[in-house]
Parts: sequence; structure tokens; C-alpha cells
Amino acid sequence: MATIRNSSPTKQKAQRERKRQDEVLEASAKLFHEKGYSDTTVQDVADALGMLKGSLYYYIDTKEDLLFNLLVQVHDEVDELLEEVKAMPGLTPLQRLEIYVRRLTSYNLYNLDRATVYYHDVDRLSEDRRSVIMARRKSENQFVARLIRQAQQDGDADDSMDAIILTNFVFSTMIWTYRWYRPQGFDAEMVADLCSKFAIGGITGFP
Amino acid sequence: MATIRNSSPTKQKAQRERKRQDEVLEASAKLFHEKGYSDTTVQDVADALGMLKGSLYYYIDTKEDLLFNLLVQVHDEVDELLEEVKAMPGLTPLQRLEIYVRRLTSYNLYNLDRATVYYHDVDRLSEDRRSVIMARRKSENQFVARLIRQAQQDGDADDSMDAIILTNFVFSTMIWTYRWYRPQGFDAEMVADLCSKFAIGGITGFP
Repeated sequence: MATIRNSSPTKQKAQRERKRQDEVLEASAKLFHEKGYSDTTVQDVADALGMLKGSLYYYIDTKEDLLFNLLVQVHDEVDELLEEVKAMPGLTPLQRLEIYVRRLTSYNLYNLDRATVYYHDVDRLSEDRRSVIMARRKSENQFVARLIRQAQQDGDADDSMDAIILTNFVFSTMIWTYRWYRPQGFDAEMVADLCSKFAIGGITGFP
Repeated sequence: MATIRNSSPTKQKAQRERKRQDEVLEASAKLFHEKGYSDTTVQDVADALGMLKGSLYYYIDTKEDLLFNLLVQVHDEVDELLEEVKAMPGLTPLQRLEIYVRRLTSYNLYNLDRATVYYHDVDRLSEDRRSVIMARRKSENQFVARLIRQAQQDGDADDSMDAIILTNFVFSTMIWTYRWYRPQGFDAEMVADLCSKFAIGGITGFP
């Protein structure tokens, strides 16, 4: 039955729509990254997709919709990753944090266009939409801050250091990869692994 | 004699010019930070200074000159700081690195407008000017990478970790402050101190 439902014309149409939307966002990310958000027009995105501008307006009302949808998509994926790491059984706070840092860094390195646009251009959103994105970012920050505080309480990390500031440093290390990492330079998995080691070392404090 | 020379009309004129140029760069940094480089016009800068646009063109030919001069000014100041740390006697590589990280982070936190423009908009420069800035950035990178390698050779840091990647992480931690730090939130010196501890902890590796 599932097979029949999956291949129903309505379902197929929805899948095609979804695929097209993903293509629109991918092309937008690539252009925003290469040309900058300000200098990219809806016409550029349509050209990159081989679409008429009018057809692209079927999916969006403004260029800002492209940026907003892109950042929402990043959060959907990053939240999924966070939930997976949260659900892993039998880990100490530091172990959980190490896995989270490694995975999120990997995600950024394998999605450089989108990660770049996310971190570089979020301020280009109108205030209400920026708030939506910031609220979602906040829950990731809280996840990391909580793990750091737990590690400090367990005596596994230096509790003289402010957990909120450390959280910002941990995100810095993961985030700034978008500015220096190039796939032809270093292996992504190796960089992600080192990133997690650096972050955990930074939190636990040096001897 | 020196006093007489210092107060000569030519010297005074040069000092006024210099002061005016600094004001132009300061106003540019503030506007580029607040409105974004793309959305700021030379007219905006002139307005902020209470100058006629024509008078501002006495100092520059294009808006890009403002951005370039600003980034050169940042490097002049940051290079000075680097030379001071280089010249300090009797320090281990890790101690020297710790001081450098603390001082550069302080510099960034006390010069948020300029640091933000530097890190956010360097790619808006034309290719030849971008190369000039990147070459200057490279020498800072090499300074840090060399200290990390020395620490690894001395057995003071985990030598299984790639020094170039670690260098990028150290700069990440210092640089990304421009995105999260706000003067009304945390004390700048405390943040700079924690930044140096986090970076050194990240390099030395966790137990």
C-alpha cells in the first residue's frame, strides 16, 4: 500500500516540488557565497537554475525569502544532528560535547556554501526573521553551555572559567572554519576531529 | 629645537591632516559595521563627518579606498603589537603565545567596529588589494604556527595535531569575538584572558 501511495500523482508532484525547492536553495547559497548576498539578484538565481524569474517567484516573494528559507533549512538539519547527539546513551558531558563538536564541524565543512551564508549574512534579515533564527541558535548555545557546566560540576573542566564565554569560544572554532577551510586543502574529517580536541582542551584548561 | 620643529606650521598642518584621516577612517568603520559595507555610500561617510562629499574626495578616490586604508591601519597597529610580544625576553613559546592571544583579543574587543569590518568585509576588496592584506595576515599566521611547532618540539603541546589547523583554531577564537562580544555584556580584559587560556588549553591537548 505504501508503495502505491508513494507513487500517487499528488505525492510525486509534492516530491518534485520539494526537490525543486532544494535546488533553489542550493543555487542561492552558492551565489550568495560567491557574489555576496547584497550583490546577488533574484535574476541571478533564476539564471543559475535555467528558470524564468517569474517561475522563481512561484517559490518566493522577495530575495530575503531565499536567505531566510536557507537559514531555516540549515537549522532543521543542525537540530536533527543535535537531537541525535542528545539521545546517545552513556556518555559523560565532555564525551557528548566532543561528538557534537565533531559532527557539527563536519556538517559545516560539507556544506560550506550554506554555512558561509548562515554565518556571514544572518544580519541581512529583517528584524523579525532574524529573531526567529537567533531563537533557534540560542537552543544550540544552551545545549553546549549546559554540557560545559555539567563537566565543571563533575570536576572534569576548570570551573573558574565562565561557561557562557567558553560556549562562544567553542562555537567560534566550529564556525570560523567557513573562512579558512577549503576542501582541496585538508581532509574534512581530520579537521572536524581536531576541532573537537581543540575545543575540549580549551574547556578542560591547561595544566 | 625639537619643540620648534614640532610646532612649525607645516608640521601642524600634517598633524591636522593625520587627525582628519583618522576621523575619516573611524567614521567609515562605524558606518560599515552598522549599515554594512555594500549599503554605505561615500555620502553617508561625509554626512557622518559633517563634511561635503567633495572634501572627502580629497582623501580618497573611491569607497574602496576607505575600506583598504582601514584594513591597512588595523595591520599597522596589530603588527606593532606582534613586534612587542616577539621582543619580550625569557618566555617559553606557550607563554609568548598566551600573551599574544590575550593582547590581540583585547585589541579586537576595544576596536570592535574596525575588527568587524576587517573580518567581515576583506573579500569586498579588489583582488590586488586583497592580496596586500592577505600577505600581511600571513605573517601573523606564521608567527603563531611557529610558536605552536616550537611548543610541540619542546614537548609542551600535543605534536600529533597539525600546527596549521591549530593556528586557524587559535585565530578563530580571537576573531569570532566580533560576532558575539558586546561591551555591555562582559569585561574585555576577562574575555581576552579566557581566550588565551582556551587557546593554550586547545593546543596543549586534553588529558
